[in-house]
Amino acid sequence: MAIVTLATDYGTVDGYAAALKGVIKRIAPEAEIIDVTHELDSIHKAAFAMKRYHAEYPQGTIHLMVIDPTVGTSRRALAGKASGRYYVGPDNGIFTFVIKEDMDFQWHQIDPEISQVRQVSRTFHGRDIFAPAAALLASGRELISLGREISDPVTFSIPEPVCDKREISGEIIDIDTFGNLIINIPCRVLGSVAPTVVLKAERIPFAATFADVPIGRPVAYAGSTGYIEIALNMGRAANFFGVAVGAKVIVEL
Amino acid sequence: MAIVTLATDYGTVDGYAAALKGVIKRIAPEAEIIDVTHELDSIHKAAFAMKRYHAEYPQGTIHLMVIDPTVGTSRRALAGKASGRYYVGPDNGIFTFVIKEDMDFQWHQIDPEISQVRQVSRTFHGRDIFAPAAALLASGRELISLGREISDPVTFSIPEPVCDKREISGEIIDIDTFGNLIINIPCRVLGSVAPTVVLKAERIPFAATFADVPIGRPVAYAGSTGYIEIALNMGRAANFFGVAVGAKVIVEL
Amino acid sequence: MAIVTLATDYGTVDGYAAALKGVIKRIAPEAEIIDVTHELDSIHKAAFAMKRYHAEYPQGTIHLMVIDPTVGTSRRALAGKASGRYYVGPDNGIFTFVIKEDMDFQWHQIDPEISQVRQVSRTFHGRDIFAPAAALLASGRELISLGREISDPVTFSIPEPVCDKREISGEIIDIDTFGNLIINIPCRVLGSVAPTVVLKAERIPFAATFADVPIGRPVAYAGSTGYIEIALNMGRAANFFGVAVGAKVIVEL
Repeated sequence: MAIVTLATDYGTVDGYAAALKGVIKRIAPEAEIIDVTHELDSIHKAAFAMKRYHAEYPQGTIHLMVIDPTVGTSRRALAGKASGRYYVGPDNGIFTFVIKEDMDFQWHQIDPEISQVRQVSRTFHGRDIFAPAAALLASGRELISLGREISDPVTFSIPEPVCDKREISGEIIDIDTFGNLIINIPCRVLGSVAPTVVLKAERIPFAATFADVPIGRPVAYAGSTGYIEIALNMGRAANFFGVAVGAKVIVEL
Repeated sequence: MAIVTLATDYGTVDGYAAALKGVIKRIAPEAEIIDVTHELDSIHKAAFAMKRYHAEYPQGTIHLMVIDPTVGTSRRALAGKASGRYYVGPDNGIFTFVIKEDMDFQWHQIDPEISQVRQVSRTFHGRDIFAPAAALLASGRELISLGREISDPVTFSIPEPVCDKREISGEIIDIDTFGNLIINIPCRVLGSVAPTVVLKAERIPFAATFADVPIGRPVAYAGSTGYIEIALNMGRAANFFGVAVGAKVIVEL
Repeated sequence: MAIVTLATDYGTVDGYAAALKGVIKRIAPEAEIIDVTHELDSIHKAAFAMKRYHAEYPQGTIHLMVIDPTVGTSRRALAGKASGRYYVGPDNGIFTFVIKEDMDFQWHQIDPEISQVRQVSRTFHGRDIFAPAAALLASGRELISLGREISDPVTFSIPEPVCDKREISGEIIDIDTFGNLIINIPCRVLGSVAPTVVLKAERIPFAATFADVPIGRPVAYAGSTGYIEIALNMGRAANFFGVAVGAKVIVEL
């Protein structure tokens, strides 16, 4: 029984997301649908969210993600495979982290003709192309049967930190629900000495968890996604610092 | 293994929706529960949402929907069947599109006594009547065992477009999460010539998808629900036009 | 096939909740995950939400709840059992009602070493400790294998109503999504005579359901959670009265 995870920007109240689920269950009655979210709000955040969950799932899982502002244009529909898991969605960058983390992938451009469900609309490919493709994979169809292989899926560039002997310059690449700031500096660059992290001239202590600093104070730590993060104990770091994605952060070694 | 879809206005944070799911799993352990939404906010929008998803599901699916402002009054509790799918919820118009689209239906008034779960509360029929009824159907019980057949389920009137030789006058019947405007004019009335659509004196081109017009500009198109829609490329038509449900739209043939 | 219910404060958009679900499915492929909510916003409300749903589920269900502002400190991780159902989450009071309602419980402190999934982070115990613990229970592991038994799980005090011959003094202990006010006075104290309920000098009639009073008027009734509640017919009592949790309510017998 294959798992199909579902992440969209459809909201739930209109019934669009429910329509996708019906299509999946009609084509692949044995598939188990797991909701990720229906509140995706940008391609960058969507890509980063997928980084957080995709590899936690068993081999054979199909990760379906639809945030698709250019639906109906020449943008391609993708189905891919990497490390035994499948990925289905529009070719607009949402799979950037999957692609950059695992070089051993295969991507295919979905042929709209695979959808035998109905006439394909021009504005609801989630229902008419992506859900059928995910369901076909869930029912055991091979990737190659969905369309021809391609070698150039769209990715966006992830800003790289700049290192010298005394410090690493990075930037905020995501802000989560809790207002925690995720920095593009991997935890593995840290040595055994706890660094100081500087954001907007504030020198932030590095610790293990939020409660290691007083309530209302900022703390840097090795985040659960593998990057250095900045949080506020019992508060929102994003508000405390008044920062957005892209703000510069220095880690002093 | 029957599917039970679940749409409510309960939100999720209080645990009401979770209570319903527990009742279903206790009565019908094999049932597969699929969340539609817990953010329903009006009977009209709820009915339109169901139109979007109900027929995508396999035969035998039970669609449970609860938005029930008159709970505990004499309004009836319904369980119905149409085209091989089941419908359970309050008799207040939420099944309007199901009823109007499929004349071959059967509706029964649920006898509160079918609930063997507990004493039936006067304010939480979702848990005490509707969830048990859906679960009994999921476990193979016949409709007739839930209560006597009725012939007059409540529906609200759906405004009809007015046609003459040169134009069709319609109105907005739904506004979705994206701010797209759904017009009560079925796509099938369109001939081979693309019409012009007029809303608040703006003449809107008819095209295939959003990106066929410049960013920030409105476009009319054959919507995925079977009606003509108006959207803004990369924006919200509802805000651009400042309109609500009921606003008049003209399609020039 | 064990059910795992999942309630968190993670939101859905970041992918944290989806990561938990992946961990569960990897460890316990047969487990059936049921979403409760990902919008928990306080430990008190979370505990009250669990009161509403936990006992509706079949024997063997595992209720996983994570709202964990002191993650990474010395607060314990709990796995418990009461009346045949399991409970997993941080030891911060979220299981208060479970503990107070069922004296025949067992609680164990989860040993972080049970997580064989990965190195345990200091800030995401939902993924690294609680989800693995729930999944191990779902796959048939005994509680005792998760860690040593403890006898003092954290609970918060639930305010008790004060009774005399003529009235009961209580207070609002929860306000739900609909703005209904839940009072800490159990319905079972009511005799056969309908009492009058007084809030902020307003004398509120006691009735069976919302529609028993005119639209826009307040009504008191025996609520579905077993407590007396105050609602507004077609409105929000919380806004009408301008009250918050803790406000005093008198029931005149």
